Amino acid sequence: MDFEQFFKDQLRRLREENRYRVFADLERQAGRFPYALWREEAHGPAREVVVWCSNDYLGMGQHPAVLDAMRGSLMLNGAGAGGTRNISGTSHHHVLLEHALAEWHGKEAALLFTSGYISNETSLATLAKHLTNAVIYSDADNHASIISGIRNSRCEYRIFRHNDVEHLRELLAATEAERPKIVVFESVYSMDGDIAPLSAICDVAEEFGALTYLDEVHAVGLYGEHGAGIAERDGVADRITVIEGTMGKAFGLLGGYIAASAGLIDFVRSFAPGFIFTTSLPPMIAAGGLASLRVLRGAADLRARHQDRVRYLRRLLAGVGLPVMPNASHIVPVWVGDSSVCKAISDRLLMDYGIYVQPINYPTVPRGSERLRFTPSPFHSAEMIEKLVSALYECWHDRSFALDPTGTSSLPPSRNVLARSSAYEAVARN
Amino acid sequence: MDFEQFFKDQLRRLREENRYRVFADLERQAGRFPYALWREEAHGPAREVVVWCSNDYLGMGQHPAVLDAMRGSLMLNGAGAGGTRNISGTSHHHVLLEHALAEWHGKEAALLFTSGYISNETSLATLAKHLTNAVIYSDADNHASIISGIRNSRCEYRIFRHNDVEHLRELLAATEAERPKIVVFESVYSMDGDIAPLSAICDVAEEFGALTYLDEVHAVGLYGEHGAGIAERDGVADRITVIEGTMGKAFGLLGGYIAASAGLIDFVRSFAPGFIFTTSLPPMIAAGGLASLRVLRGAADLRARHQDRVRYLRRLLAGVGLPVMPNASHIVPVWVGDSSVCKAISDRLLMDYGIYVQPINYPTVPRGSERLRFTPSPFHSAEMIEKLVSALYECWHDRSFALDPTGTSSLPPSRNVLARSSAYEAVARN
Ligand SMILES: Cc1ncc(COP(=O)(O)O)c(C=O)c1O
Ligand SMILES: Cc1ncc(COP(=O)(O)O)c(C=O)c1O
Repeated sequence: MDFEQFFKDQLRRLREENRYRVFADLERQAGRFPYALWREEAHGPAREVVVWCSNDYLGMGQHPAVLDAMRGSLMLNGAGAGGTRNISGTSHHHVLLEHALAEWHGKEAALLFTSGYISNETSLATLAKHLTNAVIYSDADNHASIISGIRNSRCEYRIFRHNDVEHLRELLAATEAERPKIVVFESVYSMDGDIAPLSAICDVAEEFGALTYLDEVHAVGLYGEHGAGIAERDGVADRITVIEGTMGKAFGLLGGYIAASAGLIDFVRSFAPGFIFTTSLPPMIAAGGLASLRVLRGAADLRARHQDRVRYLRRLLAGVGLPVMPNASHIVPVWVGDSSVCKAISDRLLMDYGIYVQPINYPTVPRGSERLRFTPSPFHSAEMIEKLVSALYECWHDRSFALDPTGTSSLPPSRNVLARSSAYEAVARN
Repeated sequence: MDFEQFFKDQLRRLREENRYRVFADLERQAGRFPYALWREEAHGPAREVVVWCSNDYLGMGQHPAVLDAMRGSLMLNGAGAGGTRNISGTSHHHVLLEHALAEWHGKEAALLFTSGYISNETSLATLAKHLTNAVIYSDADNHASIISGIRNSRCEYRIFRHNDVEHLRELLAATEAERPKIVVFESVYSMDGDIAPLSAICDVAEEFGALTYLDEVHAVGLYGEHGAGIAERDGVADRITVIEGTMGKAFGLLGGYIAASAGLIDFVRSFAPGFIFTTSLPPMIAAGGLASLRVLRGAADLRARHQDRVRYLRRLLAGVGLPVMPNASHIVPVWVGDSSVCKAISDRLLMDYGIYVQPINYPTVPRGSERLRFTPSPFHSAEMIEKLVSALYECWHDRSFALDPTGTSSLPPSRNVLARSSAYEAVARN
C-alpha cells in the first residue's frame, strides 16, 4: 500500500475540518511570566506576546526556589537519571519527593511517573487488568489518558453521565455485588472547569465497596488549605483510594504521580509496565518538584491572588456580553462553537494584539463546542486583563469572521453529553 | 472485595519468587561519573559506590556542554513547558531539536515525546490502528513499550523468532498481499546486547512492501560515523521508514522521538493521544538534547574509547572463566540463570565491594535467564574494571550462594525463544 498517500489523505481531511494544528513556537522568559517570545518562522524574528493559556497556573515554573533547587541538582547530580527506576535510575530526590507527596495527600505512599498521562494510563490499566473480572465506572468527560488506561486494560467499563451521581449509582447497582469495582473521575475538569461532587461520589462508591480513583491534575497546588487539591478542600482525601496528580501544571515542571496505600503503591510499582520499563525523571526534576511542593504547601496567598484574577477576568468578560462558561474553578472558557471561527479569533489576537490563546478544537473538546480557554495567573495584571477583554470584544464583533448568529455568540442551552462521550470513541480511533 | 488483601497477596507472591524489587537510592555526582552516593535508608548515611549498570552510556549526563545549555535555558526560560505541545507548550528549543534530530537520521522530520516508552507505545498504536486491516510483524525480543503499542492498537500481529529473517519472510509471505504491513524490530537488544541484521530485514520488508519501524534506543549516540545508530553504521537509514530513539540513554537526559517522512510525522503529531494529551518536555531538556546531539555527532573518539573499555571488560571476564554472554555491542551481560543467586551476588558486590549492578530478573528477562548486566563507559578506568572482575570472581566462587552446578556457571546451550516470547504475555498480564 502507498503509506505516504494515506498520511497525506488523512492530513487533508484534518485541514478540511479546520482542525489541523499549528503549534506556536514560544520562548518563555523566566522572571517575566506571563510574557514569552513568539516566532512565526523557526528562523525568523521573535516578538513578545502575553501567554493566556498556560497551565503553569501559578507561575511556579519560574519561582526562584524551584530554579535554585534545579540548578543545584543539575550541577551536583548531572542531567538525566541514567536508568529506569530499578536499574540505577532512583535518585535520592525521587525518594524524598515520593515521601513528601504521600504526606501532602495524607496517604501512606506515592509513586512518580514521567508524566501525568502515563501515570493514569499505566496505573488504571494495571489495576483493572489484575483485579479479576473488574468493572470500571468512568465519568463521561474523563481525560484521554484515563480512557486509554481503561481501554488498554480491556476490562468491562461503563460511562456515567458527567458528574451525575444518580447515574453512577444506577450503574453500580446493576452490577453483581462480588465483582471488583473502580470509580474513576476528575476533580476539576480541564476544558469546562467544572468541579465534581467528590463527597457524593464517595458516598455511592462506599455503598457499593468500589475503589475510587481521582485525577486531581488541574487541582493540585490550587485548592485546599495546603494546596493538596479539591479532596483536601472538601475534606474527603481519606475516602479516595488513589489520588493522581501531575507536576506538569501548577508545579511548573513535568511528571505525574499517584498517592495511595502502601500496598497499592507497591503493587503498581511492581506491575505497571509504563512505570517499570522507562528511564526515570531526571533527579533535577524531582528536586524541583520537592521545592515546588514546599512553596505550594504554604502558598495560600498566591492561591487567593489567583482566584482574584480569575474573578476579575470573568466579571469583565460577562460585562461586555461575551459567552464565558460558568464554573467554580480557575479555568475561564469562552464558548465559540465553531472550529474555524475559533482559530480565526485566536490568530487575530496573536497577530494584532500580541495575545496568545490557543483555539481548543476537536478532539480535545467535542465538535461544535470549540472554545477559547483562558487561564489567568497571579501574574496577569489588571491591565493585561482589561486589554485582553477589549481585544476579544473587538475581534468578536468584527463581521469578517461571519459568526453564525444563532449558535456562536451565546452559550448552548444545555451540555450535550452524548457528544462528549464521543471522546471515548476518539481515543479508540486515535 | 478486599483490595488491600489482594495487593498484599500479589506482593507476597513476588517475594516468594525472589523477584520483589528493591530500588537502590543513589545520588549521581556530576564530574565524578561513574561514582554515586548510595543510601541503604532514606535518612541514613551515604556511601560512595561505582555504578556499573547506568544507561548513560557515554556519561553525557554530566558533559559540561550539556549542563551549560540546560542551566542557560533554566535561567532564561524557567523550569517546565507549561502546556501540551499544542497549548503553549512548544518551545523554540523543541522546534530546533526536532530539526536537528531529523537531519541527523537523514529524515525529513522528527517528533519529540516525553519518553522513549511513550514514543513507541503511542506511535505504533496510532499507525497500526489507522492503517485499516494492518498486520504487525514483531521480533520476539521486542521491548515492553513496543509490545504495549502493538497490543493497544488491537491490530493483528505475528511474532517472528528473534533476528530470524527467514521466519519473518515466511510470515510476510503468508499474509494477503494487499494488507498494510509493519515490521517492528530493534537494532541493539538491551538485555542480550545482540544486533539485528538490518539490511537483510529491509530486503524482506521491501519485497513485501512493508513499513519498517526500528527502535534504536540502545544505539543512538553510540554507533555510526556521526553516532546516528546502527542504521547509519550499516548504511540503511534511508530504507527504514521510522527510526525511534531516546534521549534517556546515550544522550544522558530524558525523552523519546521518532524520525521519518514529513507526512508520517505530521500524521503521528496529529493523531497520537500519547503525544497530544500531555505536558511537553521542559525547554531545558530540549536545550540539553540539542547540546548533547551536537557533541555526539562529532564524538568518534568517545565512541572508540567506549568500545575499548567494553573489550577490556569482556576479555578479563572471559579470562577468569565467567559466563559472559557474547555479542557485538557495548552491553556486557553475565549469565546467572537464577533470580535469588543473581540478587545475592548483586547485594554482596554492593555491600562488600562498593560496586553497584542491579540484578536483572523476570519480567525484564525470561525466568531462568537472570543475569548481571554491565555497561562500561569511557569513564570506567582500567583499575575499576580489574576490581570489578576480581570482586565478581570472588563472589561467584563463594559457596554460600549454593549455585546450581548444572545451570548457573555456564551459558545455556541455546536461546529459548519460546520463553522469551512470553514477554508478550507478561505485558498482556501486567
Ligand atoms: C485531566 C488530566 N489528566 C491528566 C493529564 C496528563 O498530565 P500530564 O500533562 O502531566 O501528562 C492532563 C493534561 O495533560 C489532564 O488534563
Ligand atoms: C528497547 C527499548 N525501547 C524503548 C525504551 C524506552 O525508552 P525510555 O527509557 O526513553 O522510555 C527502552 C528502555 O527504557 C528500551 O530498552
